[in-house]
Amino acid sequence: MHEPLPLPLAMLIVFGSAKLLAEICERLGQPGIVGEILAGALIGPSVLGWIAPNDTLKALSDLGVMFLLFGVGLEVKASELLKVGAKATLVATVGVIVPFFAGWGILRAWGAPQIEAIFVGASMVATSVGITASVLSAKKLLHEVASQIILAAAVIDDVLGLIVLAAVSSVARGHVNVWEIALTASLATAFTVVTGLWGTKAANRLMPHFDSRVKADDAKFHIALVFLFGAAIVGAFLAGLALSDTADARVRTLTRGVSEMLVPFFLVGIGLHLNLAAFRSRSMMVLALVVLMAAIVTKLIGCGLGAVSLGWQNVLKVGLGMVPRGEVGMVVAQIGLSMAVISSEVYSVVVFMAVATTLVTPLLLKIAFRTPVLEPVQL
Amino acid sequence: MHEPLPLPLAMLIVFGSAKLLAEICERLGQPGIVGEILAGALIGPSVLGWIAPNDTLKALSDLGVMFLLFGVGLEVKASELLKVGAKATLVATVGVIVPFFAGWGILRAWGAPQIEAIFVGASMVATSVGITASVLSAKKLLHEVASQIILAAAVIDDVLGLIVLAAVSSVARGHVNVWEIALTASLATAFTVVTGLWGTKAANRLMPHFDSRVKADDAKFHIALVFLFGAAIVGAFLAGLALSDTADARVRTLTRGVSEMLVPFFLVGIGLHLNLAAFRSRSMMVLALVVLMAAIVTKLIGCGLGAVSLGWQNVLKVGLGMVPRGEVGMVVAQIGLSMAVISSEVYSVVVFMAVATTLVTPLLLKIAFRTPVLEPVQL
Repeated sequence: MHEPLPLPLAMLIVFGSAKLLAEICERLGQPGIVGEILAGALIGPSVLGWIAPNDTLKALSDLGVMFLLFGVGLEVKASELLKVGAKATLVATVGVIVPFFAGWGILRAWGAPQIEAIFVGASMVATSVGITASVLSAKKLLHEVASQIILAAAVIDDVLGLIVLAAVSSVARGHVNVWEIALTASLATAFTVVTGLWGTKAANRLMPHFDSRVKADDAKFHIALVFLFGAAIVGAFLAGLALSDTADARVRTLTRGVSEMLVPFFLVGIGLHLNLAAFRSRSMMVLALVVLMAAIVTKLIGCGLGAVSLGWQNVLKVGLGMVPRGEVGMVVAQIGLSMAVISSEVYSVVVFMAVATTLVTPLLLKIAFRTPVLEPVQL
Repeated sequence: MHEPLPLPLAMLIVFGSAKLLAEICERLGQPGIVGEILAGALIGPSVLGWIAPNDTLKALSDLGVMFLLFGVGLEVKASELLKVGAKATLVATVGVIVPFFAGWGILRAWGAPQIEAIFVGASMVATSVGITASVLSAKKLLHEVASQIILAAAVIDDVLGLIVLAAVSSVARGHVNVWEIALTASLATAFTVVTGLWGTKAANRLMPHFDSRVKADDAKFHIALVFLFGAAIVGAFLAGLALSDTADARVRTLTRGVSEMLVPFFLVGIGLHLNLAAFRSRSMMVLALVVLMAAIVTKLIGCGLGAVSLGWQNVLKVGLGMVPRGEVGMVVAQIGLSMAVISSEVYSVVVFMAVATTLVTPLLLKIAFRTPVLEPVQL
């Protein structure tokens, strides 16, 4: 567009508008997180045009979601998540298959080419769990069984999402490389299993060792950051999980400082991408709304069914918790766009779906988790 | 150069190498900060070539210095700095005039054109106080009188630096716009005086008001960040100063979390720019060393003399504290390069001076502040 704003001014606009709209939402009895995403839509190219996405904001946004997931990981124990492992695997798997075929089917029915339909299906597969985790953490609900299933399922869903993306990209390139897909699948699975099962043990051994030998102040926090950067975005939650036994109150508060600063950039970053181009023609508008409904309903059914043995209330909680597609859905669509296998109209439909699922989830979760809990409350 | 690294990997390399070299320096009895700058030189284009400067690292580095100065501001009281105001004004003013004429004179003697000599002089004017402040803060020396003079003088030096830059750019464009220079001078002075004198009062009134009305958790920290981003890089210290009465322990710890993560990017960022191109010919090498010596000696004398009434030990402390030119010197040289008024060789000489003054200061400060203090120590 035009010359980017000076950094502090851009940060002031992003951070200030996020916190202002969060406050307004809170006062209206709605989750603040919705206000922060709306702030992005408001200051972004679609409405006011004060801020356009750029490399720096992208980096701050990526760091924001890393610290968000890392912080949530710190609050959870790997041993607890392993207990719900079987259920979470079912939730994740069904919750990947149903949306994929729904997305593919809708696009085929609409007359899209095979490959475009496959990409839209793939973009509906992976959950962006940051939004849900943030809502659950803020409401201190992370230790409910539904929350534990959501978090564990999101980890598995990340792995499945990577495999689907590898497969779909392979198809788009015209020759399916089975070995490459198998390699991606094995690496992603191995990384997750190893970190999930032994990460905590390794951290419990290493941390006291480092801590007693390193001279710098706040060395524990530095080591935690090295873990985090080493685990990258996909592994940020696992890095937090591994450190959840050893991180003391100071490490948690320092992490919180970084999150408080950076998470608004993640949320605003999602809103910034809202693109109303999908609504230029009536036919695209119908497609966008149908895709959005399918994105919500298929995760609700697909993921919810995996939790059916825990009662209908948990079906609703787990299903809704897995609805947001956020930045993960957008990445798939961007890859499709860059490979020229999806049109710019279909791209804007996917982005609309990704932003809208992210925006409605906190509102729906609020309702789902408000219904009276029958289990005894632990104080 | 080539495709930039994925963000988490780049962060791992920058952060990990900074903390590793800091630890090595600490064990050798040297300030950790020197290790972090050396880490930048090591992983940068001059030696290993793992990381090249880019927009994202630049943004993280700018944020790093903002949070560094903000955190130092939080530790200091405006009322204390005002007490040393007169001395600090003298320190800053003489410490701007002497290096400017030294830089200009050396380049003229070396045969450089008038305008190039003026730009080199200008690049030697402004102190990058972050390094000194960080050393003093880590050693808990911020409340010594020499430290207070350094901080107050650095604020005034920032204003003078802006004026010199405006004047020099005006000269380089060929027509001196007196009104523009006067406007820059008035705005910079007004901003500093208003924030310095009434910032604390305003914050003391506003903070409790906001704090009791805003619903979000950690709202105080959010407001502090809005202050900071609003004050931009130049005003980051003043923003901290304004909040030093009202910021509670939690705001300080959250700020510390952000600093601990971001400051290494500032320090590594300085080291990354080390460019040994200045040493390709013997004549350039001599120039680089002469400019470096002049940069050190002129601040030592110029700034030190302002503190002569406090004894020779304080002359040494204040003079050395004002030596680093860091990113501030580089900015002037970059503007000169982009206006094509300085050659790429002279540019690399200035960058060498900026990096080297920054690197030697913590080592020299350590010696200056180690000499026994005769004043009674308060516990």
